Order: sequence, then C-alpha cells, then structure tokens
Amino acid sequence: MSFHIHTNPPLLKKYLTMFIKEEVEKVGVQKAVLGLSGGVDSAVSCYLAVNALGPENVVAIEMPYKQSSRESVEHAELVIKDLNIKAFYIDISRQIDSYFDKNHDADNLRRGNKMARERMSILYDFSAKFNALVVGTSNKTELMLGYGTLFGDTASALNPLGDLYKTQVWELARYLEVPQEIIDKPPSADLWEGQTDEAELGFTYEELDAFLYHYIDCRYSNIDLLGAGYEQEFIDKITKRVRQTQYKRRLPLIAKTSRRTIGIDFNYERDWGV
Amino acid sequence: MSFHIHTNPPLLKKYLTMFIKEEVEKVGVQKAVLGLSGGVDSAVSCYLAVNALGPENVVAIEMPYKQSSRESVEHAELVIKDLNIKAFYIDISRQIDSYFDKNHDADNLRRGNKMARERMSILYDFSAKFNALVVGTSNKTELMLGYGTLFGDTASALNPLGDLYKTQVWELARYLEVPQEIIDKPPSADLWEGQTDEAELGFTYEELDAFLYHYIDCRYSNIDLLGAGYEQEFIDKITKRVRQTQYKRRLPLIAKTSRRTIGIDFNYERDWGV
Repeated sequence: MSFHIHTNPPLLKKYLTMFIKEEVEKVGVQKAVLGLSGGVDSAVSCYLAVNALGPENVVAIEMPYKQSSRESVEHAELVIKDLNIKAFYIDISRQIDSYFDKNHDADNLRRGNKMARERMSILYDFSAKFNALVVGTSNKTELMLGYGTLFGDTASALNPLGDLYKTQVWELARYLEVPQEIIDKPPSADLWEGQTDEAELGFTYEELDAFLYHYIDCRYSNIDLLGAGYEQEFIDKITKRVRQTQYKRRLPLIAKTSRRTIGIDFNYERDWGV
Repeated sequence: MSFHIHTNPPLLKKYLTMFIKEEVEKVGVQKAVLGLSGGVDSAVSCYLAVNALGPENVVAIEMPYKQSSRESVEHAELVIKDLNIKAFYIDISRQIDSYFDKNHDADNLRRGNKMARERMSILYDFSAKFNALVVGTSNKTELMLGYGTLFGDTASALNPLGDLYKTQVWELARYLEVPQEIIDKPPSADLWEGQTDEAELGFTYEELDAFLYHYIDCRYSNIDLLGAGYEQEFIDKITKRVRQTQYKRRLPLIAKTSRRTIGIDFNYERDWGV
C-alpha cells in the first residue's frame, strides 16, 4: 500500500523557522544548542535553527561514542560546514565506559539508553554555558512508537520536528537542501554497528507513517483501518506499541493530594491566576 | 507569620501506598527503584515504596560524588538498614570528572545539574536491569520553585511526593517514623559543602510553603496575598520564580503541524480512539 501524507515543505519551513525564533527569543535568549548525530532529523532541526536565529547563534555538538560510525561524524561535519556554525566534538566514551566497567551485565539497549541520556546531559550543560535553548530532533514516528530514550534524545526545550512523521522529515530535508547522502542513507540510531531503524522496528517508515497517520491523526477505528487495507496483526502490533509507550510522552505521574497538581490541573497560563 | 497547611499523615500514608502499588502493578511490574540521597524526601518515598511493594521489591541506589558529605551516606544507610532493602552504592565521580576534566569553565550549578542527570540515568539503567519503575522524590515546593534539575532529580515514572510541600513531607516523615536525624537536619542538595536549601532559596520552607499554598492552591490574587500579610517584594520575587520555571514542569514544546500533537492534544486515554 502506498500512501502519501500531505506535506507542504515551503509552509513548514516558514512556520517552523518562526516557531524556533519566537520560542527562543520570548524567554530572552538568542541561541540554540543541538546535538548533531549525522542523521537526517538533527540535520533538519539544525537547518531550521540556523534559518531562525542565524549561524552565529546555533551551537552544534557532536557526541560520538567510540563505536559510532565514522560516516556519522562525517555527515555531521557536512552540516556544520554547509551552515558555517560553531561546533564542539565531545567523545562520550570515557563517561560511558567508567559506568559500564562496573555494570558488565548491560545489554545493547541499556548501553544505548545510557549514551542517549549522557548526550542529553551534555546538551543541557552547553545550554547553560551558552545561555541557549536545547532544540529537539525527535520526529513523530519515533515519539509515537516510543522509539527513543525517555529523558535522553526525546528531551529538549522545544522541538520543531515532533509533529512530523519521518517521511515528512525527508520531504522537508529535500526542500531545505540537506546534503543528499544524509537523506539517502538508511536511518539508524548508530548505537551499535549495522543497526538500522527499519530492521529494529520491523517495518519501513513508509508503512509505519501511513498507518500512524490514519490511526492517530485521522482517528481511524479498527474497522476503518481494516477497510483501508491494514492487516489485523499489524494493527494490533502497532497500536499496542503506541499504548505501551504512552509513559514516554507524558510527565512523571504525581499522586494528586491537593487542589492543584503539576501535570494534572496546574498546566496552563490560567494557572497563574492573573 | 505562622501558617499550617492542613495535612493528614495517616490518610496520606494509606493513599500514597495505594498509589505506588497500583501504578507499579498496573504496568505488569513488581519492583521500584529509587535514589537515596540521605535526605528526608527520598527517605519518605522509600518508606512508602516498601509499604506498598514489600522490602524485597524496592531497590535503593546511593550515588555519591566524591565531595558528597559522609553524613548523607550514613543517613541513606540508616534507611536501608531500617527497611531491610537491597541497595547499591555507585560512586559517580569518574563519570562526572571525565566530563569536567575537559570542561573546566563549569560553575557549581552546571556541575550540580550534571550530577543530578547522571543519577537519573543510573536510576533508569537500574530500572531496566530489575524491571522496576523509578519512584520520584521531588516535593511540591521544589517543583513549584524550579529548585531541581530538569531531566535530573525531577524525572521519574511516578512521584508520591510531588503534590506535598516540604513542611508536609516532614509531617509525613514523622508519622512514618523516618529516623529522627534525617528529619532534623537542614535540607541540602549536598552538591557542594555547606550548601543548604534555605540559604540558597533565601527563605525558610515554612515561609515558602505557606505562600505557595495560598498562591497556588488557594489561587489568592495579589490583593488577597497582601491582605494575608505577605510583602509585595516577597510576592513579586516568588511569583516571578514560579512563572520563570514553568518550563521545568511541562513537556518539551512541540511545534503543532498536524491534527493531533503530543503534549497538546494527544495526551489522554481519549487519544486511543477506543
């Protein structure tokens, strides 16, 4: 089944640029900091941030682990050169290894999550150093499937991509003229050699995005989804995954013991009582 | 001005115990993991977790930095012994120092935040190791004043204390028979020697809690607050701090580009479309 989610790259570029500029400047800040992995998502966030704030106000951080692929670093550097932005290269191997030296039992998943959280903590440290906001790079496909690390790569101050499915990020990347090799390569979290997102997820992004668009955005019921040609097994698998990862898309759950509770009924501007 | 926030420790104990038990078990998990700092908040969370799940299902992690006070470790160990729970001692100095060796310019605040985030990442790693949920230990005073590290100590799966002001946590601690020396000592994040919360915040918890209760829970207007005897300067200072730290109490801001956006209108069970 081939389905194309309607996407308007020129409008997205304008709107997301304005979003970054307004959200950064309204808190009295000029700069943004973001992690450049070499992948297409962080590249797109970076192009948008530079468009919004100017190259002098965007700080990119490369944070490879010793097993990260050489290609990832090269691709991150393509972006840095093309945009002419300030960049830092911080190898996270020593921090990660000094922890796992004493925790040998950890599998790839635990190691990958530790790395993602180390990177978040470095981005936030640099945001303090440069009085900058952390710009996120997680797309809607990852966020809906919980394919990311809670308080790791999904953490940011503002995220221009969080409502765009991966296939939409690719469209926007082409429009923004992100280097072609970054757009063309198979997406990977690069947490271990040979890892690819689509192998791990079990489906292509094209399949996943079409389904998620119908399920989430169009609120198709199970009957609607069957009618649109999705198999029941696939429907069950993906909808279960979305439900089971809801905890990654919400605030820590606080036990309500008062009249106004963070994350429950203390959330909005009305909370200021002005 | 002396004001006592109505608090019912026996009812809180019952309710918060049930909260932990239900929230942990409903996701098919038996265990909880939490960081024990030696302070009263994490001690209270720990007593509640043991009450909810049994001592065999609570894993405590002590995560001192080399400058952490010896007293903090001793107090954490009082809790571990009293409750007879499994505990791990993980010194975070190597991870922290290997980062700051190359980032010399960092002040105490940046160092403290890096430590808090390292501790979060260790708690989450242990939650994977033991198939456990991370139980939070931030109280409402800290959360409302933004006196905590975003994606650090404020991060958890569930938090029994997040709706209790510090003075209420102390009342509950006495009822739970937390060791007296933990209740009596001046609260401190123990990020550097001699640090105390009240010196850093500039006011006592008794003053802050009474004010926050009137401002947040009772929704007093500025005139109400003046009428209740608060000085305008104090009102301005605290309300500004609450507003300026709102970003720590919300999800990363996602640019809305679709019909259903995480953190905006994809938040609740109605989102499942069932």
